[in-house]
Amino acid sequence: MFTEADIPALLAELTLEEKASLLSGQDFWHSQAIERVDIPAMMMTDGPHGLRKQAGAADHVGVNASVPATCFPTAAGLASTWDPTLLRRLGETFGAEIKANNVGVILGPGVNIKRSPLCGRNFEYLSEDPLLAGVLASALVQGIQSQGVGTSLKHFAANNQETDRLRVDALVDERTLREIYLPAFERVVVEAQPATVMCAYNKLNGSYASENRWLLTDLLRDEWGFEGLVVSDWGAVNDRPLGVHAGLDLEMPSSRGINDARVVEAVRAGELSEAAVDLAASRVLRMVARHQPVAAEGGSFDPAANHGFARELATRTAVLLKNDDGALPLPGLDGVVVIGEMARTPRYQGAGSSQVNPTFLDTALDRLRARDADLPFAPGYRLAEAAEVQDRDADDATLLAEAVELARGRTAVLFLGLPAIDESEGYDRTHLSIPESHRALLSAVAAVADRVIVALSNGSAVTTEWDADADAVLELWLGGQGGGEAAARLLLGEAAPSGRLAESIPVALGHLPAQLNFPGERGTVRYGEGIFVGYRGLDATGQAPAYPFGHGLTYTSFSYGALQVEATPVTAETPLDAVVLTATVTVTNTGPRPGTETAQLYVGRPSSAVARAPRELKAFARLDLAPGESGTAAFALTARDLAHWDVISHSWRVEAGPAVIEAGASAADLPERVVVDLTAPALPQRLTRFSTVREWHADEAAWADLQPRLGDFWRVLSPEGGADEALAVFLWDMPLLKLPAMFGSLTTADVDELVARHG
Amino acid sequence: MFTEADIPALLAELTLEEKASLLSGQDFWHSQAIERVDIPAMMMTDGPHGLRKQAGAADHVGVNASVPATCFPTAAGLASTWDPTLLRRLGETFGAEIKANNVGVILGPGVNIKRSPLCGRNFEYLSEDPLLAGVLASALVQGIQSQGVGTSLKHFAANNQETDRLRVDALVDERTLREIYLPAFERVVVEAQPATVMCAYNKLNGSYASENRWLLTDLLRDEWGFEGLVVSDWGAVNDRPLGVHAGLDLEMPSSRGINDARVVEAVRAGELSEAAVDLAASRVLRMVARHQPVAAEGGSFDPAANHGFARELATRTAVLLKNDDGALPLPGLDGVVVIGEMARTPRYQGAGSSQVNPTFLDTALDRLRARDADLPFAPGYRLAEAAEVQDRDADDATLLAEAVELARGRTAVLFLGLPAIDESEGYDRTHLSIPESHRALLSAVAAVADRVIVALSNGSAVTTEWDADADAVLELWLGGQGGGEAAARLLLGEAAPSGRLAESIPVALGHLPAQLNFPGERGTVRYGEGIFVGYRGLDATGQAPAYPFGHGLTYTSFSYGALQVEATPVTAETPLDAVVLTATVTVTNTGPRPGTETAQLYVGRPSSAVARAPRELKAFARLDLAPGESGTAAFALTARDLAHWDVISHSWRVEAGPAVIEAGASAADLPERVVVDLTAPALPQRLTRFSTVREWHADEAAWADLQPRLGDFWRVLSPEGGADEALAVFLWDMPLLKLPAMFGSLTTADVDELVARHG
Repeated sequence: MFTEADIPALLAELTLEEKASLLSGQDFWHSQAIERVDIPAMMMTDGPHGLRKQAGAADHVGVNASVPATCFPTAAGLASTWDPTLLRRLGETFGAEIKANNVGVILGPGVNIKRSPLCGRNFEYLSEDPLLAGVLASALVQGIQSQGVGTSLKHFAANNQETDRLRVDALVDERTLREIYLPAFERVVVEAQPATVMCAYNKLNGSYASENRWLLTDLLRDEWGFEGLVVSDWGAVNDRPLGVHAGLDLEMPSSRGINDARVVEAVRAGELSEAAVDLAASRVLRMVARHQPVAAEGGSFDPAANHGFARELATRTAVLLKNDDGALPLPGLDGVVVIGEMARTPRYQGAGSSQVNPTFLDTALDRLRARDADLPFAPGYRLAEAAEVQDRDADDATLLAEAVELARGRTAVLFLGLPAIDESEGYDRTHLSIPESHRALLSAVAAVADRVIVALSNGSAVTTEWDADADAVLELWLGGQGGGEAAARLLLGEAAPSGRLAESIPVALGHLPAQLNFPGERGTVRYGEGIFVGYRGLDATGQAPAYPFGHGLTYTSFSYGALQVEATPVTAETPLDAVVLTATVTVTNTGPRPGTETAQLYVGRPSSAVARAPRELKAFARLDLAPGESGTAAFALTARDLAHWDVISHSWRVEAGPAVIEAGASAADLPERVVVDLTAPALPQRLTRFSTVREWHADEAAWADLQPRLGDFWRVLSPEGGADEALAVFLWDMPLLKLPAMFGSLTTADVDELVARHG
Repeated sequence: MFTEADIPALLAELTLEEKASLLSGQDFWHSQAIERVDIPAMMMTDGPHGLRKQAGAADHVGVNASVPATCFPTAAGLASTWDPTLLRRLGETFGAEIKANNVGVILGPGVNIKRSPLCGRNFEYLSEDPLLAGVLASALVQGIQSQGVGTSLKHFAANNQETDRLRVDALVDERTLREIYLPAFERVVVEAQPATVMCAYNKLNGSYASENRWLLTDLLRDEWGFEGLVVSDWGAVNDRPLGVHAGLDLEMPSSRGINDARVVEAVRAGELSEAAVDLAASRVLRMVARHQPVAAEGGSFDPAANHGFARELATRTAVLLKNDDGALPLPGLDGVVVIGEMARTPRYQGAGSSQVNPTFLDTALDRLRARDADLPFAPGYRLAEAAEVQDRDADDATLLAEAVELARGRTAVLFLGLPAIDESEGYDRTHLSIPESHRALLSAVAAVADRVIVALSNGSAVTTEWDADADAVLELWLGGQGGGEAAARLLLGEAAPSGRLAESIPVALGHLPAQLNFPGERGTVRYGEGIFVGYRGLDATGQAPAYPFGHGLTYTSFSYGALQVEATPVTAETPLDAVVLTATVTVTNTGPRPGTETAQLYVGRPSSAVARAPRELKAFARLDLAPGESGTAAFALTARDLAHWDVISHSWRVEAGPAVIEAGASAADLPERVVVDLTAPALPQRLTRFSTVREWHADEAAWADLQPRLGDFWRVLSPEGGADEALAVFLWDMPLLKLPAMFGSLTTADVDELVARHG
C-alpha cells in the first residue's frame, strides 16, 4: 500500500486515462482501484447518525438493505444537546464503528442551515443558527476523525431544500452567504479539516455547486485552507471537465466511464489542463492513503455498549417544551396510561440515504413496561402507510374511543408526531402540522384525562397550536434506537431533560419571512429574507414564536446574576481571532434537583450601517449545577464574532457603536442586558466620482483638498452661509460627479484629479 | 412656430452642436431655444398636486418662492378617493391652471409603489397597489392632457425610497418588477400616452435608470408603445452619451454645456450614432411643437372656483378609520372644543419639489368658527420647528394642561399628525409614530373628555397604537388648501366620508416584510420580499393590520348580496385584453343616510406554480346609494388581470386551477367568496437536457420518443414495475442528462437527439 509520500511518483507512472479514472467512483460506494500499480479502492458510506453500509452487491441506486449498525439520534436531536463535548464522544464511538466496518469515509455530517422548517432533510441538519451548527459539527468531525476514518462535510453549499434540488438556482446575496449559510462549513474546515467536503446538487448564484470554482477553490481552499478532497453529492455532476477545473476532485458514484472519457478528451483538446487532473487525482490518492489502511485494518465494536451510548445520547437530545405545575417527572407509573401507536412503533430516524438498519430498537412502551409490566396502552391512531387499508375512518374512531376510555381520570402519556411519509430526503413538507388524527386524539383525551403529557417524535419543527391541551410537552425528535429508553428515563425523572431548541418553533409557518420564497419557483429560489432566518426573522418582524430558539425546561430552575461585560477597542490592526469582548454571568440552581443550564449570550447592534437581526447567538455554555449551587459562564468573543461581512471591502468588519449584550436561557428569555459602546475604525469607503460630498467630508485629507474648490456650492452648504436646512441635507448627499454640470462647482478635471488622488 | 410636420426639415438644418444642445435644458426649467431657426424654449414645472412655478429668475437649485397656485390634496389623499372620474376632473381643472401659467409640461404624477410607509416622498405617490395607482394616475394624466399641456410620469422606475436615491441600486427580480413596480407606469403609458416619462435617479438591477436601455427603450417604447419623450429627473444624468443611446431624450436641468459637448464628442469619436442624437432631438422638438403653442397661448383660471374644487376634493380624500357608537358626525358644535395646533396651523402639503404656494388656505379652526364663532380652542402642543426655543418641556406641559382643562366633560376634536420635518422629499422617515407630545395630549384629554375625535394630518401611514383613546379617527392626509373646510364639513356631517385606504396601516413597521431590507445598505437595496408589498405581505405573513387596505367607514352602512362569477376558458389564442371572468355583486345601503360604498374585488390563486399573495385587488367600483337603495357592481376581468408574469417565457400567463374570487369593503372585510376553476394551458416549459423525467413525461410526443429508450430505468420507475414509492419520487425528478452516467439508461447521444427533436 502506498503512502502519501509516494503520490508524486505514483502519479508520474499513471497514464492520463488512469488518472482520469481516479476522478470518478469504481461503483456506487468505492473509489477507483488501479491494480496495475496497487491502488486499492476505498469505501464511502452514508450515515450522519449511523452507518448505512449496504450488504452484498450495491444496487445501482444504493437503496438495498444495509448491515446492522448503531442508529444514533438524528442531527436535529444531536443539535438540541448544545454540547460539543458530547458530540466529540459520539464521533469517537461512531468512528470506531465505521472503522470496524472497513469503511474509509462516512458521508456526513450535514451542516446546511434550516432556512425553512419544511425542508425534507432538516432531520439530518443541525440548526437554524450557523454558530451552533458549526461548533457541534466541528466536534463531531474531530471525534470521528480521531479514529482514523474520514468524514464528508455536506452539502456545500446553499442546499436548503429538497424541492428541485438537482437543479434549483439558489440566489443568495454575498453578506447572507457569508453570515448565515457558510460559517458552519468554514468553522468545520478551519477547526477540524474534514477528509472530504461534499458539493451540493443545486446551483448557487447561477453556477452548479459541482462546477463552481469560486466555491470549491477560491473560498474553500484558498481562503479557508481546506486540505482534503471535494467529492460530488451522488449524481451531482453535470459537466465533468468544468468540475475538475472548478475543484471537484471526485465524482460519485461511477459514471460508467462516460465522464472519465470526457476528461481525457477535454485534456487532449486543450480545454482542461492535465495539471488540474493531476491535482484532483493526487487528492483522491491522498484520501486513499490516509484512510484506506485504517479501513482495511478494521476492528470491532460492542453493539450493546453502543446501544447504551445511543440511549444516553437520546436522553440528552430531548427538549422539555412545556411543564405546567410540575407535571413531569411522573411520580411513578401508578394511574398512568400510555397512548399512541408511536409508543409501540417508534419513529426514530428519517427516510432516505441516512436510513440505518439498527442493531437494537427500544420502544417507549417496552421500556416503560420494563418498569411496570401492567402499564395500560392504547394505540389511539394508526400510522399512515403508503398502502392503506379500507375503512380507515371507522378504524380511527374505534381506536380513538378505546384510548379515551383508557385515559379517563388517569395521567395519559401520549406519543404523537410526524409519520415517516411526512419527512424524507427527496421532498419537502408543505405544512408544519401533526396529523389530524393525532390532534383529534389529544383533544378527546384531554377532555377526560386527569393529566396529559405529550411526547413528540418528529425530525423538524411542528406547530403546537394544540398545546393548551397538554400539561407537559416533551420533544423527543427522532431519537435513534435508544430513544424509547430515553423517553422512559425522562418521563420518570431517572434523568432530567437538558436539551435546548436548535430551531425556533413558530406559531405559524407564514411567520417566517423565508416562506415568502420557499421553495422558490420556476427553477429559482431567491433567499430574499437575507440574514433573517429562524429567530433572526421572527425577532425582526415581531412574531413571537410558540417556543423560542434556545428554549428548554428541566426539573429544576435557575436564576441569573448580573452580566459583566468588558470590551477592548478594535483597531485596524486587530486580528479577527483576537478576543475583544469578555462577558461573565453567574447562574444559580434555585430548584430542588440537580440540573443543567445552557447559558446563552446574544449580541445585537442597534445602530448599524447594515440591516441587523435584533440579536444573534455568539456563545453558549453548559453548567451542571446541584441544588443551590452557582456556576459562572465566561464568554470570550473575538473580533470575528462581533463582525459582519462588509460587501464593499469583501471582508469581516467590526462596526463602532452600541452593542447590546444579552444573557439568558433562550432567545426570548434574556434577563441580563448590558449595552457597551464599541470602538472600531469606520467602515471602509473608497472615494469615487459617485461618492457624496458627505463621504468626501468624512476623509480629512480629501476634504482639505476638495473644500476650497467648492466655491458657491460651499457657500450654500456651509452652516455659516445661512444654508436652508432642508436644502443642505439634499446637497450633502450629492455625488461629486454631479457638481460640475449641476452647480458649476468644480470642473470634471477637478473631479478626476480628486479621485486619482484620494480614491 | 414650427409644427410636428416641420421637424424632419428642421433637424436637417441644425448642426450637430445645435442638436446636442436640444438634449439638455436651457436653464433650470426650460428646454433649449435655438433662435436662429425659431425654436422656442418650453417651460416645465414641478407639481403633482399643484403648480410650483418659480417667480422671477430660477435659482440654481430651484427652490425660490413660486407663484400662487391652487394647492390640491396630495397624492396620498387623492388615491384615497378610489375615484378615477374625480381625478379626471381634477386633471382638467389643474391642466387649465397649468396652461394659464404658460407652462408646457407639469412634472407629475408619481406612480411609484409605496414599498415602505417610511419613504419620504410617499405623500406624492398614490398607493401600495399597482392597479389602484395605475387607474387613478391614468385618469389624472388624461384630464391634464385634455387641456393641451403635457404631464411627466415619474419616477421611472423602482424609485421607492429617498435614502441614497441618487445612487442606490434597486435589485428587483423580473416577476416583481412586472407585477408590482411597473404596471402603474404601463397602464398610464398605454391608456393615456403622457407627454413625457421622467427617469429616476437610482440604478435598477445595476444600471442607472438614466442609462438603462432596457427600461427606456426596449420596455417603454418597443413593448408598451410610448410615443413621448423621456426626461431625466433633475440631475439624474451621469453619463450623457450612454443616456442618449439608452433612450433618455432630454437632460434637465441645464448641464452648463458640459454634457452637450460630451455628446458631440461621442458622436465625433464614433461612440454614439448621430441617428440617436437625431431621434432624441426630434422628440424634444415634438414635445415643444405640441405643448409650447398651448403654453404660449396661456389663459386664465378662477382661483376662487379652484379653491372650491380643492375643498370638494379634500372632502373626498378623507378616510374615516374608526367611528365607535356613531361618534361622528357631530350633532352640532355645542359642547365641542377644538384642540391641537394643527387645527390652526394646518399641515396640508409635503416638503420638497412639490411644495405649492397656495392661493388661499383654509384652517379647520377658522372653518369651524365660521359655523360657531365662540368655539373654544387650545393648541395643546407646539409644532416642531427647526430652530427651537428654550424651555420646551415647560411650555409643552402648560399647553397640555390648558387643553385638558378645556376638554374636561366636553367632546374634544383633536387635530394630530406628523410635523412637516418628518415627511419630505430627500429623506425617509425612520419610524411610523406621531410625536410623543401628540400622544401624551391625546392620552390626557381622553382621560377627562366626554368624547374624543381625532383628525389626522399626515402624508403617509402612521401607526395608531393610541386609537383606543379615540371614539373616532378621521384620516385627513395632507388635504391641500381646502382641507380645513373639508374637515369641518365631514365632522359636522355636511358631507359624508367616502375615502378608502390606498395603503395599509400596519400595527407595527416590522410587520411589513419589505422592512427587512429597507432602505438597503452599502449602496444596494434588495427587494427581497418580492411581490409581498403592502397588504400582500401582511396577508402572506399572517400579520393583521391596524386598518386594512381598502378600509374606510362612512355615516351609513352597507350589506353585500351573493357574488356571481362566470369564467370562460383561456386558450393559447386568448388575447390578454379579452374578458375571461365576470363578477357581479349587489350592495345595499342599510343605514339611515345616503352614502358611497367602494366595492372591491380580489383574486387569489391558492394552487400555483409560483408564490402568490393570498389576494390581489383586481377591480373596484363606487356606488352612491340612498338609504335602502341597492346597486350592482359589475366587474369584467381580462386575461391580463388574471395573469402572472412567467419568468421562463417572459410573458403574461393565466394558470389553470382554482381562483378564489372575493368581494367586499376592504382587503380584510370580504363577505362574499366564490371559488372557480380556471381552464388554461399549462405553463410553458421548454424541454432541455436538464428537464426532469417528469417534465418529459408531461409532453406527449416527447414521452413517446423517450419512454421506450429508458430500459431498466423505466422498469424501476413504472407503477407496474413494483417500484419503491419513495424511490420513484426521486427518480421522476431526475434531469435527463443524468441518466446515461448514473443509470446506464440512454446514451448522451440519445439525450442530445431528444433535446434537438423536442426542446
